Amino acid sequence: MSELQRALKARDLNGIRALTKNWTGPAVADSMKAMSEIEQAVVMRVLPRNVVAAAFEFLDRPNQNRLLKALGQQEVADILNHMAPDDRTEFLEESPATVTKQLLEVLSPQEREVALSLLGYPKKSIGRLMTPQYVAIKENWTVRQVLDYVREHGTNSETLSVLYVVDDHGVLIDDIRVREFLLAPQDRVVSDIMDNRFVSLKADDAAESAVSLFLSEDRKALPVTDTTGVLIGIVTIDDVLKIAENRATAEMQRVGGSEAFDEPYMSIGFWRMVKKRGGWLVILFLGEMLTATAMGFFEGEIEKAVVLALFVPLIISSGGNSGSQATTLVIRALAIGEVALADWWRVMRREIFAGLALGSILGVIGFFRIAIWSGFSTIYGPHWLLVGMTVGVSLVGIVMWGTLAGSMLPFLLRRVGFDPATSSAPFVATLVDVTGLVIYFSVAFLFLKGTLL
Amino acid sequence: MSELQRALKARDLNGIRALTKNWTGPAVADSMKAMSEIEQAVVMRVLPRNVVAAAFEFLDRPNQNRLLKALGQQEVADILNHMAPDDRTEFLEESPATVTKQLLEVLSPQEREVALSLLGYPKKSIGRLMTPQYVAIKENWTVRQVLDYVREHGTNSETLSVLYVVDDHGVLIDDIRVREFLLAPQDRVVSDIMDNRFVSLKADDAAESAVSLFLSEDRKALPVTDTTGVLIGIVTIDDVLKIAENRATAEMQRVGGSEAFDEPYMSIGFWRMVKKRGGWLVILFLGEMLTATAMGFFEGEIEKAVVLALFVPLIISSGGNSGSQATTLVIRALAIGEVALADWWRVMRREIFAGLALGSILGVIGFFRIAIWSGFSTIYGPHWLLVGMTVGVSLVGIVMWGTLAGSMLPFLLRRVGFDPATSSAPFVATLVDVTGLVIYFSVAFLFLKGTLL
Repeated sequence: MSELQRALKARDLNGIRALTKNWTGPAVADSMKAMSEIEQAVVMRVLPRNVVAAAFEFLDRPNQNRLLKALGQQEVADILNHMAPDDRTEFLEESPATVTKQLLEVLSPQEREVALSLLGYPKKSIGRLMTPQYVAIKENWTVRQVLDYVREHGTNSETLSVLYVVDDHGVLIDDIRVREFLLAPQDRVVSDIMDNRFVSLKADDAAESAVSLFLSEDRKALPVTDTTGVLIGIVTIDDVLKIAENRATAEMQRVGGSEAFDEPYMSIGFWRMVKKRGGWLVILFLGEMLTATAMGFFEGEIEKAVVLALFVPLIISSGGNSGSQATTLVIRALAIGEVALADWWRVMRREIFAGLALGSILGVIGFFRIAIWSGFSTIYGPHWLLVGMTVGVSLVGIVMWGTLAGSMLPFLLRRVGFDPATSSAPFVATLVDVTGLVIYFSVAFLFLKGTLL
Repeated sequence: MSELQRALKARDLNGIRALTKNWTGPAVADSMKAMSEIEQAVVMRVLPRNVVAAAFEFLDRPNQNRLLKALGQQEVADILNHMAPDDRTEFLEESPATVTKQLLEVLSPQEREVALSLLGYPKKSIGRLMTPQYVAIKENWTVRQVLDYVREHGTNSETLSVLYVVDDHGVLIDDIRVREFLLAPQDRVVSDIMDNRFVSLKADDAAESAVSLFLSEDRKALPVTDTTGVLIGIVTIDDVLKIAENRATAEMQRVGGSEAFDEPYMSIGFWRMVKKRGGWLVILFLGEMLTATAMGFFEGEIEKAVVLALFVPLIISSGGNSGSQATTLVIRALAIGEVALADWWRVMRREIFAGLALGSILGVIGFFRIAIWSGFSTIYGPHWLLVGMTVGVSLVGIVMWGTLAGSMLPFLLRRVGFDPATSSAPFVATLVDVTGLVIYFSVAFLFLKGTLL
């Protein structure tokens, strides 16, 4: 048993205080995971409030909830008031609405105002990621004034590497690295150092828009303005990393043909998961039923030439595979901004040729498969050459069509306002399956009319 | 024409100098994109070396290469010597080997040593992301000594928010936020502030391992140690954001059934792209040929009951869709650490029940589709009830099998050392297509023996 565990068991508050003297938030959170609820509450009571708030941010949701229940109202208020505004927003928005309301009430009037204004932005917007903990300066200040101001007001700001210059109306007019002030003469004026070049985020924009900006700008934090250009907060890169990872997960899940889970695979409820997966599977199934209709339409042909049926799975799945491939490539390229909506024409040209090349490769392999097999077996009948040509030519057409449909569907979906990732791999495969059958039997009719058909 | 353009045209060096006085790296890079090569070279010559190096980092690769050609060897050396070590590593490793060698030769001996040591780590390892620009302190220093040291040596370090405590052998023993030194009395000793709790990365580990650590630790930078625990550098979160986005892109491309491109969709060469896509399509096509073999095996059954052929695409694609769905979910959960290899059993149990639920839903819909249709049409013949039951029961089995195969394949691949994302949606679909046919015709034999078969 560790000294701390012994002190906890004995409820020796001074002992606990001595042992946890130098602990920081993450250390506290780490060791609390192994404690009972009561022990957690005891530790939380002994530690300084700012350390407790820091530790609270590092606990997972179930531990946070347990702890809130074990603590008194004043203690909860202290924790919430000491939390970083952006982490508090995240915590509040993940709480049930009634709990959020109770929690907001225990905040100090000042912090409540901050919390409410952050919660006032749309879900998944830049505004929800903001923290108001930045340092703003004026352009007529001297370097000395700036450095004094930073020393006085800077300890609380999320990042001190960049200072923001605002005009008298609070409008952002520049951002300057602190480093430049350290190297400049003390009596120089801010406006002499300004280059009036800055990038900023808009509070109402989607949170995901921050990812590409952070990637291209190589910054640890970016300023956020409202619609009039007034500086209202900053977004730090650690939140953006979370957003980027969550976006990639949601995108991947959609591409795989399911709704985005919005929670980890292992913790999502079973029926909730079945619902998110079943919805799309049913839609795809209903769409796929058209293949039965299409097959029914060609039943006469199949009866005359059963050999045609043998290649149906091969043919349609090749279209599905090439379509899945093209659609995931284009969805990701659109998501990370490698291609824009306006590039659809260049992508289409590229994909037509790619489809032709890929289809020709598969077509040739398919033809020779049938030709060579026919040397050893009579399964494909006397007209194996025509059957081989039917399969080969169909493959070229179907792979081209799959590639084209798969690559253009994400553009179409974004154009009409949907998430491009709705064009999932199974969705494209289903679409191509149905049309693929029509292509296959049409080609068969062309080649086999008068012989098998 | 802007003043700068005029000054450039007139080769008015003093004018250019005055106009670009306050420019920082990104601003220079931005305006250089619109300049001719000669103009770029002129601007680069006029600006201070550190600004030029900063601007160089923000240019894209083609612009970088053009510029290197236009500049003299001394100027190239100056730029490279002034670049941040981590950005320089990235630049060097993306250059052709012969160019890298030439570039290394123009570095100062000191910087060459740094560059070579960073390039000595395996590709895509933490070591390649490192920068040696951190501040290390000793545990017996006072707070005053630490702050003096930071003032003197800190301006060059990538992040100043955290200082690293090392022992006499350079072994990392703690990390402490600068903030704590600002609040502590000047004569306190470092060891009094230490909590001996820190997380660090290993230089030889895969770069991707940094992503989950940064997500859980909420830091802007993390220290890197060698195998003996000696601090050798830090990794900053902006590089990790890039790694996370690149990983997600590669994963998505693999899941879509293609090799990872490793370069943007629009800039990858056409035949290079066809090769990366064609390789997998051919493998899948060869696998899918087994469906033709399987169908050939059941040719007799199809001839007796053509109605069975009608549902082949519907049946196998449902298995493929549920498999695609399960595999993408599990691949992503494995990638971001939501599930570990050891969780395979829990995932399997969950997926068996999910497959049963999803298969039952589709099975019921499929059965009623046939039952209702038969009220209006004779296409399914007098034995429509048995056909409906064949389709319904097959769907339950195939969706369960698809879900199971799709969810377990990524575990199996990781177990034997492959990337789980190799289990792409089309790969699972192909696997399930072949086995799905066997399931379907076996169920058909069970229900239709003595009537249709």
